[in-house]
Amino acid sequence: MCALPYTPVICKSMHGITCLASTPVADARRHDASLATADGIVSWLTVYDQENFQGKRVEFTSACQNIMECGMDTVRSLKVECGAWVGYEHSSFCGQQFILERGDYPRWESWSGSNAYHIERLMSFRPICSANHKESKITVFERENFIGHQWEITDDYPSLKAMGWPSNEIGSMQVQSGAWVCYQYPGYRGYQYIMECDHHGGDYKHYREWGSHAQTFQVQSLRRVQQ
Amino acid sequence: MCALPYTPVICKSMHGITCLASTPVADARRHDASLATADGIVSWLTVYDQENFQGKRVEFTSACQNIMECGMDTVRSLKVECGAWVGYEHSSFCGQQFILERGDYPRWESWSGSNAYHIERLMSFRPICSANHKESKITVFERENFIGHQWEITDDYPSLKAMGWPSNEIGSMQVQSGAWVCYQYPGYRGYQYIMECDHHGGDYKHYREWGSHAQTFQVQSLRRVQQ
Repeated sequence: MCALPYTPVICKSMHGITCLASTPVADARRHDASLATADGIVSWLTVYDQENFQGKRVEFTSACQNIMECGMDTVRSLKVECGAWVGYEHSSFCGQQFILERGDYPRWESWSGSNAYHIERLMSFRPICSANHKESKITVFERENFIGHQWEITDDYPSLKAMGWPSNEIGSMQVQSGAWVCYQYPGYRGYQYIMECDHHGGDYKHYREWGSHAQTFQVQSLRRVQQ
Repeated sequence: MCALPYTPVICKSMHGITCLASTPVADARRHDASLATADGIVSWLTVYDQENFQGKRVEFTSACQNIMECGMDTVRSLKVECGAWVGYEHSSFCGQQFILERGDYPRWESWSGSNAYHIERLMSFRPICSANHKESKITVFERENFIGHQWEITDDYPSLKAMGWPSNEIGSMQVQSGAWVCYQYPGYRGYQYIMECDHHGGDYKHYREWGSHAQTFQVQSLRRVQQ
């Protein structure tokens, strides 16, 4: 169990991005566990302005729209202590997005994808409130606007093609429950797109709704987000 | 079903690296499916010496120890048509290793990890004969030589820490069935290590046995290989 240095405000399914109240939580004592309740999940993220968990440190339990407003110029390493988060290339939750599940991220390589274009620092963060590894469901469609061949998915697929999906693209998606990460290439590589049941009402009808960095319908693997 | 342009020699569990007979298979007709039999899985890989599936092309149904011996200088894109494969940075199955499941890999970003050190071409390949997504089991140990706290795993874990594993390291592993990919960082990122029940008798007692590129016990996520 996570012994948090504050009274947690429980993360409930909502359309906004802020899940918990107090932020940042400075100098919290370290505990290595997660806290789940009947209503939701506590989120807790520690960021550092130097690699390998060095330098200035700030802790978050809710979304951070711009790291510079929290007295940091950059984030070069981080630890996800509780919950699942998304980190963004730019402030205001823009640019490339990176799924951050529990664990240690000592430098950019540990959160980045395999793209030639490196994201060496992160500028905004938010918890993923709807992540529910055990009860996740997404329907993928062959074409945009929920048209064409469709397939309901409840498990992880490192290769959609191996499971019978006919192409390298997904036209649109509806997230019925939980949160998902879709990847451009097989084996969870390339651009990442976080899809949540409580954003856009779970509807992602065109790649332009997948994120500000999306430029193609290409999706070759996808998986549930783990809390 | 995979309509292969040759009579397939079935891949049986073995300690060697060669699973199928004929190689390379030139100018095969394209079919988009996989062939599984009671005895094993057919493997089929097409490689190109230019990005985006351009240039010279060679097809393989068994291991290739050195791409230069097959009349190619380099591999810059590839398609996994059947089965699961490992691609290597160097010839003779050395250097960084990359899991390759069914799908299209148009350039190095699509197979590489997120490391600063880019692997822009692959030099050797082999099929993973033991991959069995549904019946895979691995036991991970806290310390080398199968000592300390242990944990039997049969599912995918994007974050071992989220599931209760106490550290960022695994000391040793025993693969009871199937094939696995272990990753240095959470979310299937960083260095990859392919672990198979039919290599080393399934025993990996120290990181030095995980691959010629392994330099640390760090493992923060792991998953089954999909056929």
